[in-house]
Amino acid sequence: MGQLKGRQAITGKPRTGAEIYADLREQIADGRLAPGDPLPSTRALAARLAVSRTTVTAAFKRLRSDGLIETRPGARTCVSRDLPAPDRASADRTEAAPRLSDFGVHLTIAGQPRRPSQPAEIEFRYGDQDQSAFPAAQWRRSMARAIATPPTVPDAQGAPQLRVALQSYLQRVRGLHCAADQIVIVGSGQQALDLCARLILSPGEGAVVENPGRPEARAVLAAHGARLWPVGVDASGLCTGQLDGIQAGLALISATHHFPLGGGLPAARRHALLDWAARTEAYVIDDDRDAEFRYDMAPSAPLQAIDPHGRTIHLGGFGHILSASLELAYLVLPRGLVATFAAAQKLIGYRCSMHEQLALADMLNTGSLDRHMRRQRRRHSGQHATLTAALAGLAGVRAQGTAAGLHLTVWLPHLEHSQEQLFCHRARHAGLGLSPLGPCYAANTGADRPAGVVMGFAALDPVQIELGVRRLEKQLRQFRP
Amino acid sequence: MGQLKGRQAITGKPRTGAEIYADLREQIADGRLAPGDPLPSTRALAARLAVSRTTVTAAFKRLRSDGLIETRPGARTCVSRDLPAPDRASADRTEAAPRLSDFGVHLTIAGQPRRPSQPAEIEFRYGDQDQSAFPAAQWRRSMARAIATPPTVPDAQGAPQLRVALQSYLQRVRGLHCAADQIVIVGSGQQALDLCARLILSPGEGAVVENPGRPEARAVLAAHGARLWPVGVDASGLCTGQLDGIQAGLALISATHHFPLGGGLPAARRHALLDWAARTEAYVIDDDRDAEFRYDMAPSAPLQAIDPHGRTIHLGGFGHILSASLELAYLVLPRGLVATFAAAQKLIGYRCSMHEQLALADMLNTGSLDRHMRRQRRRHSGQHATLTAALAGLAGVRAQGTAAGLHLTVWLPHLEHSQEQLFCHRARHAGLGLSPLGPCYAANTGADRPAGVVMGFAALDPVQIELGVRRLEKQLRQFRP
Repeated sequence: MGQLKGRQAITGKPRTGAEIYADLREQIADGRLAPGDPLPSTRALAARLAVSRTTVTAAFKRLRSDGLIETRPGARTCVSRDLPAPDRASADRTEAAPRLSDFGVHLTIAGQPRRPSQPAEIEFRYGDQDQSAFPAAQWRRSMARAIATPPTVPDAQGAPQLRVALQSYLQRVRGLHCAADQIVIVGSGQQALDLCARLILSPGEGAVVENPGRPEARAVLAAHGARLWPVGVDASGLCTGQLDGIQAGLALISATHHFPLGGGLPAARRHALLDWAARTEAYVIDDDRDAEFRYDMAPSAPLQAIDPHGRTIHLGGFGHILSASLELAYLVLPRGLVATFAAAQKLIGYRCSMHEQLALADMLNTGSLDRHMRRQRRRHSGQHATLTAALAGLAGVRAQGTAAGLHLTVWLPHLEHSQEQLFCHRARHAGLGLSPLGPCYAANTGADRPAGVVMGFAALDPVQIELGVRRLEKQLRQFRP
Repeated sequence: MGQLKGRQAITGKPRTGAEIYADLREQIADGRLAPGDPLPSTRALAARLAVSRTTVTAAFKRLRSDGLIETRPGARTCVSRDLPAPDRASADRTEAAPRLSDFGVHLTIAGQPRRPSQPAEIEFRYGDQDQSAFPAAQWRRSMARAIATPPTVPDAQGAPQLRVALQSYLQRVRGLHCAADQIVIVGSGQQALDLCARLILSPGEGAVVENPGRPEARAVLAAHGARLWPVGVDASGLCTGQLDGIQAGLALISATHHFPLGGGLPAARRHALLDWAARTEAYVIDDDRDAEFRYDMAPSAPLQAIDPHGRTIHLGGFGHILSASLELAYLVLPRGLVATFAAAQKLIGYRCSMHEQLALADMLNTGSLDRHMRRQRRRHSGQHATLTAALAGLAGVRAQGTAAGLHLTVWLPHLEHSQEQLFCHRARHAGLGLSPLGPCYAANTGADRPAGVVMGFAALDPVQIELGVRRLEKQLRQFRP
């Protein structure tokens, strides 16, 4: 028991029962105390450590309960004889290579989290938000009400209060008619896509994705083992003529405001898409997360509103409306899928914070969210106009997209697409944060396109936007690859 | 345009642009307006509807943007000629049978959410909590601080503030040593299990589960396509002697406080389990969620603390400590698994509410959570003592378990296990909520056991507990199957 005493001398404090317990456990684990080794009596140990005998007895009681020591009638307490020999217990604490599923291996190779680059002085990153615009006071109020709400039996599809509020919000703001029991609340848009992929696609089945499109959405389907069918996108969204002959279980599109090109799918293409889905029994996920902010008129209705076949899954979210910290998203399902999604939510619980669900319902019901959205629409409309006007005066750039969303895609027709990574790198060095279009394209596609960048404007004020565009101009003049 | 006029007469209100838009869209969708049909001029329609011409123009602009109507130079505005013929668009809005993955089919069949039975007057349901014990004021304060925290770049493994606070909490309360970067925060315990199963097990691989054990945990592995190996449990937890010869990728156990039988795994069995895991390259998930509350002494250390091979995944959570509404859970991973889990979290985002993570970190750092836990331990200790004492005086029952946790397993040795469902049903009818042990056992096992029930006590005061046990006594006397 020398170690015990030595350590006490180092810490210089009377020892607690928990420390005595931990020390003895460690000595047994690493073999300093071997099976059968006798322990000192509680009285002797208490005296040696200058603690009460009760303290030592409590430590022994825990060790006995763990099966680490044993006391036989008439014999000294000793380390349990049925523990493994110390040479095994003191084996190297090195770890073998991990044993992973196919999914795990794919993620480990393909999905290493990249550290996002440091924000530039003027950062046009899509998804960035001006934190000062977050309605913190209203949210705190709604959250306090949520915390005070007595918990009810959890509902697998999400808080009924929020689903009812969402139903009326979707009808009012997006012209989407559904019942509250077609809605499923999830923790984030990525979770929503993962859930759809797991429940609908068996590994190896096909999934149509927009090309270009959201890279992180494509990655979810790819990780799931789906065979991806990248379908081209022009200024009016998905080129539905290319769907002929494709057999897929899912198509992931954005009908109202395409990311990153900004087009809206016209009615003829919507019908062609839905007809294809009905023919091939595919489901279409309409990613509507970028649709609420339109500046010249009300946004067009989502795909679900004209779907006669019940093939549309509507995906919405609040991350870009409220705060990136509140990733809550929701799905509006065709009736035929509701039972399956509810069962998955019950078992796996992708659902999000109950308090956040109730707080959001409160924000919707009290009109706080509508007021916030009107303020944000005015702000974003001004940002959009400033960026559009500043870019319009610039030679060698062409902005694309409707008067909507929180970003512009900007083509740089004098540069080849192979140069855009370097261009963005140099721009960042000069204090201008741009994102290359490349990651939005499927591998080995888009070879004939010029260079392009995505410019998100939601976090910037007009002065920053104009300064940013002047830096872009300078960068373009200076750029020699 | 007769319908427009008729509807206006019905609503009796001047129409908005959005309403005009929605009506026309509906008429085009259901074929009342066919491709090529001319529309009235904006002037004529405005006059007919008694709205301004600007209102009608805005509606037409949206319809044109949707591609539903077209205007050719010198011609009347008409419904777009490239829309599908109306007979296709007006097809039945019935839905085909859903197309699902194997996972989706399994869930739809096996996982239908069962409506939980109505709470009885005296409800001993495990998982129920006394909402009045929730530290709402502290939580509101911590949440207000969280909301005021400027958002940072999201971390795939969870808020660093919380992971650092958890590291020190785990060391202090559970004797578990780890680095903060071995911790991954998830939204719930079920999510944690799902994530482990997806990343480690390929479908068809084996998974060891305790028998009896948590049914909802077993269901996650089963839904994932794992071949389940139910291994028996006695008063000291998993019978590790039965592991020989089992090839599995995962074992899901609870080393410190078994659910439902309440045993703690002695050291010899812990070493046997870890040796088996090292030999077969399996990972062991140690479900520690029920371990914090021990009433006679400090709980024994979790499995991770003695694991020399790095095969242990530690699962903890706060649902039973704080509130069932706060399901936040966490995993402590062997180093070899960290990169894979981080990549999955980055892509799929099982992670939980950022504000809740920060609020919980605040509760941990300010000592609020420790104070709350001390209060709760006193409360639960009293409840446990009351229930144990009341049951001790009762003929025909035998309570099992250590002085720990939030439930007792109660055997009814005079009844066969086939009678327990009926017994619980009759008890519920008489105002006494008990849960049968049956669902904790794997199918076709436990044939020779007597009837048993789980009695969760966390939500009940001493008077209720004693009244409940009197009702149990009465029920036992009256029971004739």
